[in-house]
Amino acid sequence: MTEYSIGVDLGGTNYRAAAIDRDGKLLDKISGITNPMAGRESIVGEIVSAVSRLRAARAGDALAGIGIALPGFIVMETGVIMSSPNIPPFENFPARDTFQERLKTPVILENDANAAALGEKWMGAGRDVNDLVLLTLGTGIGGGIISDGKVMRGYLGMAAELGHVTVDPTGTPCACGNTGCLEKHASATAISTNARHLSLGDNLTSEDVYKLAIGGNQPAKRIFEYMGRALGIGLAAYVQIFNFPLYLLSGGPLAAWDLFAPAMFDEVGKRSFTFRNSKTRIEKATLGSDAGLYGAARLPFLAK
Amino acid sequence: MTEYSIGVDLGGTNYRAAAIDRDGKLLDKISGITNPMAGRESIVGEIVSAVSRLRAARAGDALAGIGIALPGFIVMETGVIMSSPNIPPFENFPARDTFQERLKTPVILENDANAAALGEKWMGAGRDVNDLVLLTLGTGIGGGIISDGKVMRGYLGMAAELGHVTVDPTGTPCACGNTGCLEKHASATAISTNARHLSLGDNLTSEDVYKLAIGGNQPAKRIFEYMGRALGIGLAAYVQIFNFPLYLLSGGPLAAWDLFAPAMFDEVGKRSFTFRNSKTRIEKATLGSDAGLYGAARLPFLAK
Repeated sequence: MTEYSIGVDLGGTNYRAAAIDRDGKLLDKISGITNPMAGRESIVGEIVSAVSRLRAARAGDALAGIGIALPGFIVMETGVIMSSPNIPPFENFPARDTFQERLKTPVILENDANAAALGEKWMGAGRDVNDLVLLTLGTGIGGGIISDGKVMRGYLGMAAELGHVTVDPTGTPCACGNTGCLEKHASATAISTNARHLSLGDNLTSEDVYKLAIGGNQPAKRIFEYMGRALGIGLAAYVQIFNFPLYLLSGGPLAAWDLFAPAMFDEVGKRSFTFRNSKTRIEKATLGSDAGLYGAARLPFLAK
Repeated sequence: MTEYSIGVDLGGTNYRAAAIDRDGKLLDKISGITNPMAGRESIVGEIVSAVSRLRAARAGDALAGIGIALPGFIVMETGVIMSSPNIPPFENFPARDTFQERLKTPVILENDANAAALGEKWMGAGRDVNDLVLLTLGTGIGGGIISDGKVMRGYLGMAAELGHVTVDPTGTPCACGNTGCLEKHASATAISTNARHLSLGDNLTSEDVYKLAIGGNQPAKRIFEYMGRALGIGLAAYVQIFNFPLYLLSGGPLAAWDLFAPAMFDEVGKRSFTFRNSKTRIEKATLGSDAGLYGAARLPFLAK
C-alpha cells in the first residue's frame, strides 16, 4: 500500500492536480481550466471532481491528505481566503472547511508562492538545503521563504512579500502604495513597461523584449541589465538578512538569465559582504510551473 | 536549590556578568573593564574570574551553563571567533573551548546583537511574542532576529546584518563596500556625520545634535527626520519580509524617539501594506544595555 497525497495548484486561469507519494514521485496528474467568471461553486466543483478522479484511481492506497496552493492571502488558522485578486469569487471564502466537507479528507491551504518554495525545497533545486528564498518573476514578483524545511508565514500568514520591498526609494510607483518596489523594476510586467518607455513597442511581452535583446537591440539589452541590478539590490538585502545557502528565481523572464544575471551578481557582490564572504548560491529554480503542485502535495506530509 | 545560569556581555571597553535564574530573575551582577590592548589572556582571565566569583556566591545552587555575548562573527559549530573588530585579540580564537576548559562548564557563545534580541524576547519588550526583530542603533546598526523563540542565525551564523541592507542605492558609501546601508543613514555615527555636513559642528555626538534639535535648531531637527525616513525604509522591508508582530529599536539615539519616530512611521506606512493591514508594533526595547546580558544568560536554558 502506497501512502500518497494530492496536491492542487489553483490559478486564475487553470488548475493542476496530482497524486504524489511520500518520496515525491508523481503518480498521476490532471489539469483543467478555472473560470473565475463562472463563480465560486463552479471552481469548487471542478477541483472536487479532479481530486475525486485522482483518488478513485488509487483505491488501494492511503491518502495522507490534500494540499491546495492558490494565489491570495489566507488566514491559516481558519482556512479562510481573505483576498485573492486573481480568483475574486474566493474572497472571504472559508475554502478549507468547504473543501474538507466535500472531500471528507483533511485539506491544507497555502499561498502559491510559498507552496512553490516548498516544492523546490522538496523535489527541486533546494533538495539539498533546509533554508531557501524563492522569487517568482511574473506579472508581479512573489516570494516564498523556507526556514528549517518549513514555510515561514509570519504571524498572520503575510510574510515573504518579497516583490513589495523597496529597491529604489524614489523609483516607480506601485499599486501597493509604495514607490520603487522590486516588482516594479524586475517583473515580466516591468520589462514590458520599460520597453514601452524606451519606444521599443507598445505591447511587447517580456519574451518579445528578450528576442530583441538577443538579436542585438541595445535598449532591449539595457532593460535586462536594469532588471538584473534591481534583482541584485533585492537579493543582496535577502542575503544580508537571512544568510541562507540558496536563493532561487523562477518564472518566464528566467529565459533571459544570461542577459540579466551578470548585472545581478555584480550588484549582489557589491552590496552584500555576506555574499562575498560565504558560499551563497543564487540559481534558477528547476521545477518550473510544477513547483506549486509539489509544494501543495508536500503539505499533508509535513503536517503529520 | 535554584537553577541558574551565568550570562556575560563582553564588549570592547567593558563587560558585565550576571547570575540569572530560569524565570529571568537577576540574582547577582558584576561588571568591569575590558582592555583589548592588554591581549587575549588578560580578557579571558578577567571573565573567568568574574564568572568564578558569581558561582562561588551560589555554591548550593545548580549552574545550567554559561552564555557569553560578544561583538563579532562566531562560527557556531566550532565556537571559534572569526572576526571581532572591537576585540581584536579575539580574532581566530577558539573562545568557546577555551572558556569551557577554564570554567569546567558548558559555554555557549552568541553575537551581541542576537543576544540582545533574545534578551528582549525573554524578559524585555518582546516577552509576549515569539517572533521579533531588534535593531540596535549605535556606532553602527546591529540586528537580531528571533523566530519561533530562537535566534535566527543563518547557515553560517551571519544572518541579521540588518544595518548593512540598502535603504538608498545611491546613498552614502559604507566601509562594508555597499552604498546606502541603513547604518550610514540612521546610526549615532550618521547623526554626527550629518551634523558636520550641515555645519552644526565638527565633533558633535548624537546627543549634542539631539540637544540642538530640542532647542529648536531646524537643521538638527531635519537630521532626525532624515534618520526616521531611513529607518522607515528599512523597517518597511523587514515588515514585508517577516510579518512579525514586533520590531524593536534600542541604543542611545532612542532618546530622540519623538524627533525621528513620526517620519519613521510615515515612511513604514507608505511603504508596507502589511504594516497598514495588520497590527504591527514598532517600539522601543526596554532592557537597555542589559539586553545582551539577559540574552546570554538565556542561552544555556534554551540548549537544554
